[in-house]
Amino acid sequence: MQNVGVYKILCGGPGDLTEARSLIESGRIDPAHIVAVLGKTEGNGCVNDFTREYATHAWCSLLAPYLGASAEQVAQRIAFVMSGGTEGVLSPNFTIFTRSQLSSQPALNQKRLALGIGFTRNFLPEEIGTTVQIEETARAVQAAMADAGIVDVADVHFVQIKCPLLTSAKITDALARGMSPVTHDSYESMGISRAASALGVALALNEVDAVALTNDMIGRDWAHYSSVASTSAGIELDSNVIILMGMSNSAISPYVIDHGVMVDAIDTDNIRACLSGRMGFDMESGREAISERVVNIFAKAEAAPDGKIRGVRHTMLNDSDINSTRHARAAVSAVLASVTGQTAIYVSGGAEHQGPPGGGPFAIIARI
Amino acid sequence: MQNVGVYKILCGGPGDLTEARSLIESGRIDPAHIVAVLGKTEGNGCVNDFTREYATHAWCSLLAPYLGASAEQVAQRIAFVMSGGTEGVLSPNFTIFTRSQLSSQPALNQKRLALGIGFTRNFLPEEIGTTVQIEETARAVQAAMADAGIVDVADVHFVQIKCPLLTSAKITDALARGMSPVTHDSYESMGISRAASALGVALALNEVDAVALTNDMIGRDWAHYSSVASTSAGIELDSNVIILMGMSNSAISPYVIDHGVMVDAIDTDNIRACLSGRMGFDMESGREAISERVVNIFAKAEAAPDGKIRGVRHTMLNDSDINSTRHARAAVSAVLASVTGQTAIYVSGGAEHQGPPGGGPFAIIARI
Amino acid sequence: MQNVGVYKILCGGPGDLTEARSLIESGRIDPAHIVAVLGKTEGNGCVNDFTREYATHAWCSLLAPYLGASAEQVAQRIAFVMSGGTEGVLSPNFTIFTRSQLSSQPALNQKRLALGIGFTRNFLPEEIGTTVQIEETARAVQAAMADAGIVDVADVHFVQIKCPLLTSAKITDALARGMSPVTHDSYESMGISRAASALGVALALNEVDAVALTNDMIGRDWAHYSSVASTSAGIELDSNVIILMGMSNSAISPYVIDHGVMVDAIDTDNIRACLSGRMGFDMESGREAISERVVNIFAKAEAAPDGKIRGVRHTMLNDSDINSTRHARAAVSAVLASVTGQTAIYVSGGAEHQGPPGGGPFAIIARI
Amino acid sequence: MQNVGVYKILCGGPGDLTEARSLIESGRIDPAHIVAVLGKTEGNGCVNDFTREYATHAWCSLLAPYLGASAEQVAQRIAFVMSGGTEGVLSPNFTIFTRSQLSSQPALNQKRLALGIGFTRNFLPEEIGTTVQIEETARAVQAAMADAGIVDVADVHFVQIKCPLLTSAKITDALARGMSPVTHDSYESMGISRAASALGVALALNEVDAVALTNDMIGRDWAHYSSVASTSAGIELDSNVIILMGMSNSAISPYVIDHGVMVDAIDTDNIRACLSGRMGFDMESGREAISERVVNIFAKAEAAPDGKIRGVRHTMLNDSDINSTRHARAAVSAVLASVTGQTAIYVSGGAEHQGPPGGGPFAIIARI
Repeated sequence: MQNVGVYKILCGGPGDLTEARSLIESGRIDPAHIVAVLGKTEGNGCVNDFTREYATHAWCSLLAPYLGASAEQVAQRIAFVMSGGTEGVLSPNFTIFTRSQLSSQPALNQKRLALGIGFTRNFLPEEIGTTVQIEETARAVQAAMADAGIVDVADVHFVQIKCPLLTSAKITDALARGMSPVTHDSYESMGISRAASALGVALALNEVDAVALTNDMIGRDWAHYSSVASTSAGIELDSNVIILMGMSNSAISPYVIDHGVMVDAIDTDNIRACLSGRMGFDMESGREAISERVVNIFAKAEAAPDGKIRGVRHTMLNDSDINSTRHARAAVSAVLASVTGQTAIYVSGGAEHQGPPGGGPFAIIARI
Repeated sequence: MQNVGVYKILCGGPGDLTEARSLIESGRIDPAHIVAVLGKTEGNGCVNDFTREYATHAWCSLLAPYLGASAEQVAQRIAFVMSGGTEGVLSPNFTIFTRSQLSSQPALNQKRLALGIGFTRNFLPEEIGTTVQIEETARAVQAAMADAGIVDVADVHFVQIKCPLLTSAKITDALARGMSPVTHDSYESMGISRAASALGVALALNEVDAVALTNDMIGRDWAHYSSVASTSAGIELDSNVIILMGMSNSAISPYVIDHGVMVDAIDTDNIRACLSGRMGFDMESGREAISERVVNIFAKAEAAPDGKIRGVRHTMLNDSDINSTRHARAAVSAVLASVTGQTAIYVSGGAEHQGPPGGGPFAIIARI
Repeated sequence: MQNVGVYKILCGGPGDLTEARSLIESGRIDPAHIVAVLGKTEGNGCVNDFTREYATHAWCSLLAPYLGASAEQVAQRIAFVMSGGTEGVLSPNFTIFTRSQLSSQPALNQKRLALGIGFTRNFLPEEIGTTVQIEETARAVQAAMADAGIVDVADVHFVQIKCPLLTSAKITDALARGMSPVTHDSYESMGISRAASALGVALALNEVDAVALTNDMIGRDWAHYSSVASTSAGIELDSNVIILMGMSNSAISPYVIDHGVMVDAIDTDNIRACLSGRMGFDMESGREAISERVVNIFAKAEAAPDGKIRGVRHTMLNDSDINSTRHARAAVSAVLASVTGQTAIYVSGGAEHQGPPGGGPFAIIARI
Repeated sequence: MQNVGVYKILCGGPGDLTEARSLIESGRIDPAHIVAVLGKTEGNGCVNDFTREYATHAWCSLLAPYLGASAEQVAQRIAFVMSGGTEGVLSPNFTIFTRSQLSSQPALNQKRLALGIGFTRNFLPEEIGTTVQIEETARAVQAAMADAGIVDVADVHFVQIKCPLLTSAKITDALARGMSPVTHDSYESMGISRAASALGVALALNEVDAVALTNDMIGRDWAHYSSVASTSAGIELDSNVIILMGMSNSAISPYVIDHGVMVDAIDTDNIRACLSGRMGFDMESGREAISERVVNIFAKAEAAPDGKIRGVRHTMLNDSDINSTRHARAAVSAVLASVTGQTAIYVSGGAEHQGPPGGGPFAIIARI
């Protein structure tokens, strides 16, 4: 039986892992069981946000001696996904995921939080942002499902993906071989890689029809999307890494997970519905009671691409001083916090094919 | 009997008054009845935000021919209060307040929205940010109450104040006369003038004890505050101008107003309580039904000065790229919008002595 | 004989025209002779910079009564070109250009500052950013040369162009007619319209070979550029408006103009060469002596697109907090000011096909 | 005899020490000889700039194995001074200073670059920003002079200081003991600590008269300043750490150093005078020749506090989107680069009592 541990810690800065060290030193976390860390760091979340790599660097330095490995090896072994930007009420935090197999343990009569990992092969530069990336990602998502012990796609609630981007070097390499990468701009490639990866999730989970997926619609036709994908591009890898979470009969973790979709940035109805549904929260019990059981919330946010929320103009896309992703995170995180009472949550910007335009998927992990 | 009209219009930019012109041209608004315009413009809301004076400039240009006055005279006759900053979901908007006396009209058996105006004498530079400003403001607030036909302080729900700041010229003048202005820094003087003005409201409405008010506590001791004050400093005036709103038996306006206080940036409980209380909204009827009756919401927002929300760290005060007032507006406006369904609302930053630290007052005007 | 007047004024904000009013009231400027105003306003110079339209609004309000015209008519009659962004040492300023014909005046034996105006026809949305815009612009530049009384292209030293952009409405219109505009993104269309307009200047002045100009190279192949073009896109027009300056035997203005090209952001050699060449400045006389004769400098700045200055990395293109155009203006204006002693100059960002990549053209107007 | 080595390296980001590793691995630098690293990192240079601590973290991780010490021990042993902000043309870079004693080496007949280190005792919170900090700093500067083998204050050309700031904890501690720290605001304390430290340098080097130094004038009376101080506040220490550079007969380094003062942000005269003076550069030889011999330039920049440059308004102090220190660095670095041809230089913001108001000291290290 699979046992997944989920530990959320706060920090005083991107390099402050005091709480993580204390969890390890006190024996509450066995570093050998850590499979992933999802962090929210206080940078701008855009191109020159070095808080992400600083946090990863600090984690690898912290864990290396415990794991008897070099910092570089730790970076290979554990999936670190750092999302920058803690606008508004957001409080920087890290969520540590552990996984262990308890073979002697009997199955419970109910589904519990399960976690699976998947990898694609390395992509050629010219494959990034194309249907090749979609299809390979879909295959890896299915492998991650199997790894998690999840059979039904309806039991998948959150699929976090790290995907590669096109650096100048990769672009030059493709051109030298006579191939055409989808863009010559590194920043733009991040969005297209995120887009293709999200569609890979949608394909694997039957959220979209395979025939709808063409190179031309990637990053353009927002009618097609996944309700559980959360993708982010990173310079440090050539393949897609998948962290899939859901509910499984083969898990005995003391946690449950469910998801929903905010249809726009101020949609609380779907957050409330998720909490009061299968998760069984009593919405009249107050935010404090809710906050006590919720471990963390993972959500995607974006400024509505048509410049409107419920038909009324917003100004996020025209602001040349503050990127729209920063505006969107500030708004969506405040709304999620106002319902759940938690401000140390994970809200990430750039939601291409992740939820409907202007909205985004969210997943909630709660203690049973 | 007093009849107050409230008209909210959207715009495509700070200088776009297409809707205002159309309201006037169609006869729905008599320009001679306009007493105040409260605007939310899409600047940064800080020092170099020229969208505020641009919007005022545009309003004066628009109204001058209708009123047979010069643009400068219009600026003297009507109270224009422009608040910059439409972060997150906020949609730029103007609220036009008209007032007329209908002598023949019989009183209703219920209180309705009433509006009063008040003015202090001009302040000497060395009086700004002192107890002198507090006391003069308190006197003017009481005059505005009388002007509004309001007897009970409990019927006052929103007091918007424009107050002066210390320019270099004023500071030099004071020093030349051997006097000591409270600060030599123009930007700092804005906060202190707002602070003293808010305490003037608190004093007039018996929210604070007069003995607690000393020069030393202004802008420092946040335990004392008003729950209905909303103050903003402007370079164009030497006195305080007061726009006071509340409920009065002598009013026959088709609107009601009530207020509440958000205790922190994610406090929806007090918003819901305000709507479901005397205003009589059915909170189960959905945001669309609420949004239909609400005309506008006026609120103050600030980053909690102790760096925490419900005990958990926020990063707004340490962000040197985005001012904390911008973060706070993004968060609070999203929360207000998520409850009411409206994004074209008035949320203003800088809440010194306006609501508790980290929170702020809000007032809601609704159609009956 | 043509007499061109050049008046640079400072201001305390985008709406402060105190000095302009005083020039008019004192009779030093006849408002009827004003043909163009080039302004540097203190906004961000990007999408949501409303200081540009605020300044234009203020100018039109100021001039309307003097010209017996409405503000709208003034906007049609005079070419207002406002460039936002006064980063670093830059001081906001307006340059007023007047022009009058003095028929009785005899020609001088030397060339003097001359100014010509030109217009293209209105562009269809699908023509913007294409060779059609290049060719029409070239024709209008030649007309402006004729208007200025300039025969030799070598006598043209600065061609300021205002060009249209693709609004959502224009894009929709083109698509409805089955046409393909070059981009579906308004912001991107600004760069492409600037690019095509600059190439139009280059074509008219024989700076590029007509065969090199194809739709594909516009905004891409930076090897082709004009050394005297300065283009900026505005939402308020459908055609290109050209203000051309140069030296002419038919002018008797008490000013001369010359130009040069900065090959990168720190190139002072070409600034010094321009001053010490035909303009006849003694570079050993000190900045004060230079500053006394110089009226204004007009320059274009951009971050080197390959991310390097003289082979060494810069970080302007990766900064998600400050747009690269703001960095570039701060750097280039400081360099120009350090040579000439003037900080109230006109440095504008976005130099597509205007000077070599990473560099930009500049023109200097000096009193004789 | 003292031998000082100076190595400037470029980087691809705050954590990229590829060049440093290669200098060590190739034997060109002996890590045991490293005494200080001065870095320019690509953050915002303000409160939430984590690139500084990330870079320090990376350096400590790099050097720890070479020095057989933990990362924490490396941080204690070597003085790391990281200054954030690479606006405009600035290129991120690190300057590594090594020092070794070559006892057998004979003295040269000329002065060469020497380097000394000094420390104050730890400061009580209430001493920071007072004359106590000034006096203790002065003592430590004199000790650093002795350490450098410099006798004459005229031979001191650059004094880099790291000084403590007032954290909330320190403020609380002082208040609990009934003492009054100079400010209750951490950010403000950075400026005051820098100010007192700079005056400590000025006192030690007879640049100011001791009687002029009172608690009241610190951070206020800009008439008193040092022409060689460069101070920066850091959260990680309780004492002042001094790195002093100058010329000494007891040094045999293959480098010289000299300094000057820019009187304002566009002052090239004093830069040229410094280069063409004792350093012996031929200013007609072109920037390439100059750049070849210059190793690095260390300079301080600030926006003129009276809002004017040579009598003309600047807008840096009113910009609420970009801090004035960022504007100032962009301008001053471009001017320095335009004279020397180098963009990988060290320009730091916040020049309290470091050079005249609006100007700042600079020092140049060149190969002999």
